[in-house]
Amino acid sequence: MNKIYPYKRKIYYYETDKMGIVHHSNYVRILEEARIDFLAQAEMSFEKIESMGLMMPILSVECHYKKPLTFGVDFAVYSKITKFNGAVMDIEYRVVNCDTGELSLTGKSSQCFTDMNLKPIRTRNNYPEIYNVLSEYKGYEVTD
Amino acid sequence: MNKIYPYKRKIYYYETDKMGIVHHSNYVRILEEARIDFLAQAEMSFEKIESMGLMMPILSVECHYKKPLTFGVDFAVYSKITKFNGAVMDIEYRVVNCDTGELSLTGKSSQCFTDMNLKPIRTRNNYPEIYNVLSEYKGYEVTD
Amino acid sequence: MNKIYPYKRKIYYYETDKMGIVHHSNYVRILEEARIDFLAQAEMSFEKIESMGLMMPILSVECHYKKPLTFGVDFAVYSKITKFNGAVMDIEYRVVNCDTGELSLTGKSSQCFTDMNLKPIRTRNNYPEIYNVLSEYKGYEVTD
Amino acid sequence: MNKIYPYKRKIYYYETDKMGIVHHSNYVRILEEARIDFLAQAEMSFEKIESMGLMMPILSVECHYKKPLTFGVDFAVYSKITKFNGAVMDIEYRVVNCDTGELSLTGKSSQCFTDMNLKPIRTRNNYPEIYNVLSEYKGYEVTD
Repeated sequence: MNKIYPYKRKIYYYETDKMGIVHHSNYVRILEEARIDFLAQAEMSFEKIESMGLMMPILSVECHYKKPLTFGVDFAVYSKITKFNGAVMDIEYRVVNCDTGELSLTGKSSQCFTDMNLKPIRTRNNYPEIYNVLSEYKGYEVTD
Repeated sequence: MNKIYPYKRKIYYYETDKMGIVHHSNYVRILEEARIDFLAQAEMSFEKIESMGLMMPILSVECHYKKPLTFGVDFAVYSKITKFNGAVMDIEYRVVNCDTGELSLTGKSSQCFTDMNLKPIRTRNNYPEIYNVLSEYKGYEVTD
Repeated sequence: MNKIYPYKRKIYYYETDKMGIVHHSNYVRILEEARIDFLAQAEMSFEKIESMGLMMPILSVECHYKKPLTFGVDFAVYSKITKFNGAVMDIEYRVVNCDTGELSLTGKSSQCFTDMNLKPIRTRNNYPEIYNVLSEYKGYEVTD
Repeated sequence: MNKIYPYKRKIYYYETDKMGIVHHSNYVRILEEARIDFLAQAEMSFEKIESMGLMMPILSVECHYKKPLTFGVDFAVYSKITKFNGAVMDIEYRVVNCDTGELSLTGKSSQCFTDMNLKPIRTRNNYPEIYNVLSEYKGYEVTD
């Protein structure tokens, strides 16, 4: 197993809205960035999953906004895989403002594995490589 | 009170992703469109709220993906104001594919009122016009 | 030939940025909406083009910003097909603020036809239906 | 003067569209990221410009699409300030696919300085710090 590092970047200008803060929809994209980065660090990248003919559509997503991020701010996303049964994977996220240390957002997403026609797939028997790698990270929580 | 109609439009090309379906983050934007349309139909438009010096940041949002929408599809959003206490407003949404009649998504959002510095505001005493109009629509459910 | 009407809608909240105006990247999306609407009105919709196994990737795009649009404003896009030779189609656009009548933006886009592997396709011989319909609209300018 | 490095990152999943490539509108956002990064490296960050009460709205933007980027690809943006007269700044960009070395896009943007009410401002007399720093980088071309 690899040590997984938090996902970090700065807020882009185009992510802000007329309130002067990051538009709330953009956090859903930020969580996706963090999720994809986690999987890449775990050596089970989206590209690899796709090359096996699989996709990972989202079943649900949830965001709880604590403190808005603003243009130029550095943030970090700490992810935790809270569930993985071969078919469904749940992840919880904390987005932290690195400039102030404040918690900006907590979120959750649930995703499954499907074939290219969006038909659900269980990885346990058919894609053991995926199943084995991700099972290892079940319960894993990203820390600094 | 006005009869409120569902919010309808077609999916844009740029809302799709490489899975060939609407990217999951875009539903959060669609719910915002529906929310703003609801308030306009209720004669308490965002523009009016902003002209009183208030904003409505989001406290939380939730999406449960049932059946993906695709490019060019006509959809309708049915909103219901499930809570309004003068400070916080909760809305539930159903997004329906008008071409097939299928439920595409259920969602929830919670938002509050703040001044231009994002300080929470109770509308009951200070903005009775907002309070009175939105109280009328508490529990209101959009239907065809 | 059909009379083609301007493409109209309101600016969404999420299209604004911290300057309080529509983020400049969003006009590229608005021009796409107008282009797709034009083709649908001309009875040669994107969906139809895609069902023949073709795509229309963009070769170039240009925006000249005259007067920013803001949240909630009604706008109209007037398109003109300035070139169509079966392989490449050029369109010019004027985006007008319907509330003030002011010109907000002029733009241009150039797009071609390709197969699903992004290989360029000439429609004249292989897709005469596309070629004939779009040739009719060559030089056509949308008016009210 | 500082040596300015190219702006680099990976393509996000949500930047793709149903053609399986980056949606053409997203390059306008990528150019903005590169522009803001250039200014930060030049020690005249957007945040600093904004703290002086100025904004930098876009006058025009142009993209010429050469070879589409796809999900997960590493790219680099090479910027060159081709004009700066204190009021208007023009930048040209080359976006390169770092995995293949191929040129993906060439672009241009023109922007000006305004006050918070979008009134044009000449920096030469009123904001000499901005004028002096950016004048130094006039003609500067980012290289590896």
